Amino acid sequence: MNFLLLEPHELDDAGRCRLVGRRAEHVRTVLRAQAGDTLRAAVVDGGIGVAHVESVGSEAVEVRCEIGGDGEPAPADALLLAVPRPKVLLRMLAHAAALGFGRIVLFRSWRVEKSHLDSEAMRPPLQRAALLAGMEQTGRARLPVVVFHPLFKPMAEDWLPVAGLPPARFVAHPAAATPTSGLDLAGIDGIALALGPDGGFLPYEVEKLAAHGFVPVSCGPRPLRTETALAVLKGQLDLLRARR
Amino acid sequence: MNFLLLEPHELDDAGRCRLVGRRAEHVRTVLRAQAGDTLRAAVVDGGIGVAHVESVGSEAVEVRCEIGGDGEPAPADALLLAVPRPKVLLRMLAHAAALGFGRIVLFRSWRVEKSHLDSEAMRPPLQRAALLAGMEQTGRARLPVVVFHPLFKPMAEDWLPVAGLPPARFVAHPAAATPTSGLDLAGIDGIALALGPDGGFLPYEVEKLAAHGFVPVSCGPRPLRTETALAVLKGQLDLLRARR
Repeated sequence: MNFLLLEPHELDDAGRCRLVGRRAEHVRTVLRAQAGDTLRAAVVDGGIGVAHVESVGSEAVEVRCEIGGDGEPAPADALLLAVPRPKVLLRMLAHAAALGFGRIVLFRSWRVEKSHLDSEAMRPPLQRAALLAGMEQTGRARLPVVVFHPLFKPMAEDWLPVAGLPPARFVAHPAAATPTSGLDLAGIDGIALALGPDGGFLPYEVEKLAAHGFVPVSCGPRPLRTETALAVLKGQLDLLRARR
Repeated sequence: MNFLLLEPHELDDAGRCRLVGRRAEHVRTVLRAQAGDTLRAAVVDGGIGVAHVESVGSEAVEVRCEIGGDGEPAPADALLLAVPRPKVLLRMLAHAAALGFGRIVLFRSWRVEKSHLDSEAMRPPLQRAALLAGMEQTGRARLPVVVFHPLFKPMAEDWLPVAGLPPARFVAHPAAATPTSGLDLAGIDGIALALGPDGGFLPYEVEKLAAHGFVPVSCGPRPLRTETALAVLKGQLDLLRARR
């Protein structure tokens, strides 16, 4: 947690907030803040500013926040992610929030294990906590929007055409003929990135995505775990957009 | 596990091997292999080839391997990693092996918690298991060499000058003036990448590394968790080397 992320309802009219639990512990033991210190702070889906530490007790930390403006816009990048196993899903939501995805579209593809869909990790409160952890780490205030599609075909055929995803779209496919190093993303703003389950997409699924503008790309000759591939590909697509 | 990784002592003179436990389970339930099938296989630090499945039982899977040649050379890339917390360390060793680091240098820097150094995750057998998991995933046969330096200053002053690391060296530093998108790595083969603990390096530590040729680089304006930064940076440095 490199800055303090607060929910709108936690602040009173004067911007005061009493932190207990994990965040209080973090302020005390990791940030080692004392009364009088100022921390960077933001309100979820709100503005960014500072939190003045008013008191640090063994139970609670009290802060007074000055939060300004509307904050940043939501990142334009969208992640389409075949539901991984529960622990990995929560870690990947945190990664995805930290890496700057504004939308996360979970879906079931052929090789997704059915049991994953009924796991605790599919519950919105747990997903929200994971997203907040990733946002805290990188100082982001916009909570990514998460949606779930239980069936691949309706998602691809009915939803994708109207989803308003960025036009620059990529699907990770280790067997793809196009390496990321061959892409030209100059001038591109948002991207959509689709990642399959650990066993990969079926050829049929890659074709369905390709029919909606997803270019199959490979980030190297060897298959990576989805969790590793997410960071590798986002890093590469960011780099390609940053280069002139 | 996309292929079968075997230890040299597991094979008899005829290349036969009896798998039990995790790998047998994987062959049965994930790969769903049957007698007569052929899997990709390799011997740790040895050759690459195939494993013919001879029998699949509820307890054991028997294979006969044909492994050829000396295998691939060890990847030239080296990772210098401030010891993270135990769970993260084991995950990062798997990531690092999958991402193609041939050497992993663990060290203590100022912000590394002392308790991490005494954890189970610092034990070579656990580290080896994590590395093998990463290698299996990506079909690599060379076990990365892992060393540990308990003190930063002697590592930087005494060891770095004689360590024979690749001359292209980078230290991840979110405050660095050089973004990865500004690097030119055309024609560069191996690289060394230093990653600090989650709180980052001290300026003194970055200077020490810089004095030995490590260029401070940033992969974006926001700090990432070390685990995420590892994959982002390796992906970016690989991409920059792959571009002509």
